[in-house]
Amino acid sequence: MDLLAAFWAYEQALAANDLTGLDHWFLDAPDTLRAEGDTVLVGHTAIADFRRGRGGAPARVVERVHVVRPAVGVGVVTAETRRQDGARGLQTQVWQRTDAGWRIAAAHVSAVAVPVTVPDDRPDPAVWRVAGPLVASTGQGPLAQVRTAVKDLFAVAEQRVGAGNPAWLAEARTEPEHADAVRQLLDAGAELTGIAQTDELAFGLAGTNRHYGTPANPAAPGRITGGSSSGPAAAVARGRADLGLATDTAGSIRVPASYCGLYGWRPTHGATPNGGLLALAPSFDTAGLLARDPVLLRTAAEALLTRGDTTGPITACMVDEELVSLAEPEVRASFEAACRALTLRTALPLTRTRTGAAEHLGEWFAAFRTVQAAEAWEQHGAWIARHPGALAPDVAARFENGRRVSAAERAQAERVLSDGRKALDAVLLPGTALLLPATSGPAPLADAPPDEVEAVRAATLRLTCLASLAGLPAAVAPLLRVRSLPVGLCALGARGTDRALLDFITDSRKPAHA
Amino acid sequence: MDLLAAFWAYEQALAANDLTGLDHWFLDAPDTLRAEGDTVLVGHTAIADFRRGRGGAPARVVERVHVVRPAVGVGVVTAETRRQDGARGLQTQVWQRTDAGWRIAAAHVSAVAVPVTVPDDRPDPAVWRVAGPLVASTGQGPLAQVRTAVKDLFAVAEQRVGAGNPAWLAEARTEPEHADAVRQLLDAGAELTGIAQTDELAFGLAGTNRHYGTPANPAAPGRITGGSSSGPAAAVARGRADLGLATDTAGSIRVPASYCGLYGWRPTHGATPNGGLLALAPSFDTAGLLARDPVLLRTAAEALLTRGDTTGPITACMVDEELVSLAEPEVRASFEAACRALTLRTALPLTRTRTGAAEHLGEWFAAFRTVQAAEAWEQHGAWIARHPGALAPDVAARFENGRRVSAAERAQAERVLSDGRKALDAVLLPGTALLLPATSGPAPLADAPPDEVEAVRAATLRLTCLASLAGLPAAVAPLLRVRSLPVGLCALGARGTDRALLDFITDSRKPAHA
Repeated sequence: MDLLAAFWAYEQALAANDLTGLDHWFLDAPDTLRAEGDTVLVGHTAIADFRRGRGGAPARVVERVHVVRPAVGVGVVTAETRRQDGARGLQTQVWQRTDAGWRIAAAHVSAVAVPVTVPDDRPDPAVWRVAGPLVASTGQGPLAQVRTAVKDLFAVAEQRVGAGNPAWLAEARTEPEHADAVRQLLDAGAELTGIAQTDELAFGLAGTNRHYGTPANPAAPGRITGGSSSGPAAAVARGRADLGLATDTAGSIRVPASYCGLYGWRPTHGATPNGGLLALAPSFDTAGLLARDPVLLRTAAEALLTRGDTTGPITACMVDEELVSLAEPEVRASFEAACRALTLRTALPLTRTRTGAAEHLGEWFAAFRTVQAAEAWEQHGAWIARHPGALAPDVAARFENGRRVSAAERAQAERVLSDGRKALDAVLLPGTALLLPATSGPAPLADAPPDEVEAVRAATLRLTCLASLAGLPAAVAPLLRVRSLPVGLCALGARGTDRALLDFITDSRKPAHA
Repeated sequence: MDLLAAFWAYEQALAANDLTGLDHWFLDAPDTLRAEGDTVLVGHTAIADFRRGRGGAPARVVERVHVVRPAVGVGVVTAETRRQDGARGLQTQVWQRTDAGWRIAAAHVSAVAVPVTVPDDRPDPAVWRVAGPLVASTGQGPLAQVRTAVKDLFAVAEQRVGAGNPAWLAEARTEPEHADAVRQLLDAGAELTGIAQTDELAFGLAGTNRHYGTPANPAAPGRITGGSSSGPAAAVARGRADLGLATDTAGSIRVPASYCGLYGWRPTHGATPNGGLLALAPSFDTAGLLARDPVLLRTAAEALLTRGDTTGPITACMVDEELVSLAEPEVRASFEAACRALTLRTALPLTRTRTGAAEHLGEWFAAFRTVQAAEAWEQHGAWIARHPGALAPDVAARFENGRRVSAAERAQAERVLSDGRKALDAVLLPGTALLLPATSGPAPLADAPPDEVEAVRAATLRLTCLASLAGLPAAVAPLLRVRSLPVGLCALGARGTDRALLDFITDSRKPAHA
């Protein structure tokens, strides 16, 4: 039995409070050691007695597993765990290979409670453009009483669409009816809790709206929430909403999910309704969701999805080291540890594959930016031309790039994207999830200089553009950490396998069981 | 450089926030890992960056050092530390021997705050027979404002001596003046805060006084404080007094110090004044002290000692494994870890010696019990005979044993003790401290059955009787832990080396320094 199998067998024995099993995995020696809290137990007997006295350990999910090998026959396994009450645990075990197999010679366990977010009852204009509730829950259906923050791009009946820009809002009509996605959530019982902020015209990944302010990120104090779905993400992260209805064109759900420690879902392009949604770049725009709870995310997705999955469950995971290497070193280390834990929890095979995406990425990324900008200008160029100075300079510059795209450039870029789509479809077979970091790093500081923010944006877009350009579904789970900052793990699935992907992410939260 | 020297060099670099030194000791590798709180840092660079950002670690004393060797070239060092604010820390380092020497491949650090004792303003009759203050501090002198609990065996002017027994108290005279030891402490500025309880006539080690109750042990909830100096120990452990003036015949200071996590000092026999002190067994009785703070203990000892030390400082430590083996296995493991830390902190050599005491111990112990009981009966037999039923049965039985000692038996036992004294004097040279566990285990449960309490008493007396029979000074420091329970480390010195011994114990608390 290899080291990680032994580690996982121990974890299962712990979850089941299988005392015989636990005794088995600790080295039967007088100096075997277990340290926790203010207590060091020395000797197999003292450790066994302690276990018999405590009546089991709290249930926990192993989120990340690190392995260090200081010598042949020794493995140091450090696991990062999370309890149901949110407390985070660390567990370091020094495993020693004996003639009978791997045994724990020393263990150190610690846990810290997660500080409770201070409730803030003032409606924050950086989070909410309209603080409701606007539509009460019907009290019935799978989303009954689910407080839902709707990004200010979706039509809400009797409200205007503000799109993160006061000039836009001033001219907007009062909507006669809900956007399709809004209506479907309300039909499933959700409460429409309010209309939440976005980057201007959704063309940004930072959430630093010049007009309405930068919402605080409760998961990463002093840092941005990411965007463009900044308002829904902040509302859900603060616990002021349970669900965020948002959009993802180039990463606008995945990035704030990653930065705020949330679950996020960018659907297969076209799998959720766009009716009543203000477009940015229709070839890439999707209506998706943010939530703290993956089970809720899965339930709400069911209310949005317009057609059945094309295939069965995820049965294999895939990692492309070249894609992972686009992230910061600390993200990569946490990613490896999270993948190790994920494969242990799900018992799914993980293969290391060269998808070939990395070698094309520069080309694909440039093509994606070209087409996205061109479509964005197509959507909003006329309005922008009529409202000089209405947009923040960096946002205006992105649209301006679109204005400059020639028809030939656009056609060429579309051919590149079409090839990219085919290449990714060929690699990402149904039943497989391609795992990668959702963002290149954790949330940048809110006061980072603009060039640094732009560099982070560019690095992150290289990771997020794959799903965007290919129209593939992507689910983000808060499974990586850099220092105390959340980073998302992103799972990309084959086209139309949204349910399987969300099931995979939800199942992957299961604690060990015997 | 050996493993522990490398460990200590790291600790000194940490204390000095010597970033270059700290970087040096962590393995320069991409998977070197440091886990603390809710954060895992991976890679030498990430760890170095973290250290540069934090501005140093809180000062701490390394109290115990455990070593596990899972393979050649790997050493797991788990250190138990204590900060000035009382917080307890654990630090596990996995050291890897490289061509360049030992380096840390993985580390896990955790700390827990020590719960603050709930203040209890009601005078507890199990702690205080007379709750004062009885004599205010003069406000001057080395013990100014030091709140002092005096064991109810010492004469206090205008008060009676109660000796832990209501019948005794009822007949006691009002004392015309303070006992010498009390007067000397008051002359040094101490406040006489109250008269604190004792086992009946000080003939017990449990602190379970049948008449006045069993005081709670704040350091070990649900467990006894130990005795006979139960009242002073409880008062100091609760923070209701700073200093306890107490007596030690067979362990009555050392045992409650060990059980309550206090510093305790049993002086060289005859080195402190016995005037005005109710005797139990004058050949062994000593007036000594209990305190939370070793520096205060040292200062107060100076006020009691009637003559100078006969020699210089402690320059070597000695451990006799055969004596240590008298303690419970978990105490032995903690003792070894504490000795390891002590020798690192003090840089004094520690030798493993067969003192020969263990092989004579059965004989010495029997002789000690015989003479102690005979002297106790000599002191109190007449009163006991006049007051049938006044003492608890177990206490009465101890005196009854003394009544039965024949003159020949006593003479023979005294010869044995004289030989024992000579043998110990020959081994315990001035400048040397013999280290051993202060008690065989942590405090027993307050509701333990009588035969278990008696078994613990017998086991502990085997450890404590050495200093008692030989009249040697002993200092107890709260340096061992069994699970979360305190156990004392006892240092025995040569006759008349009280100051050196207390200096040694005080110095041994120093944190690492560069």
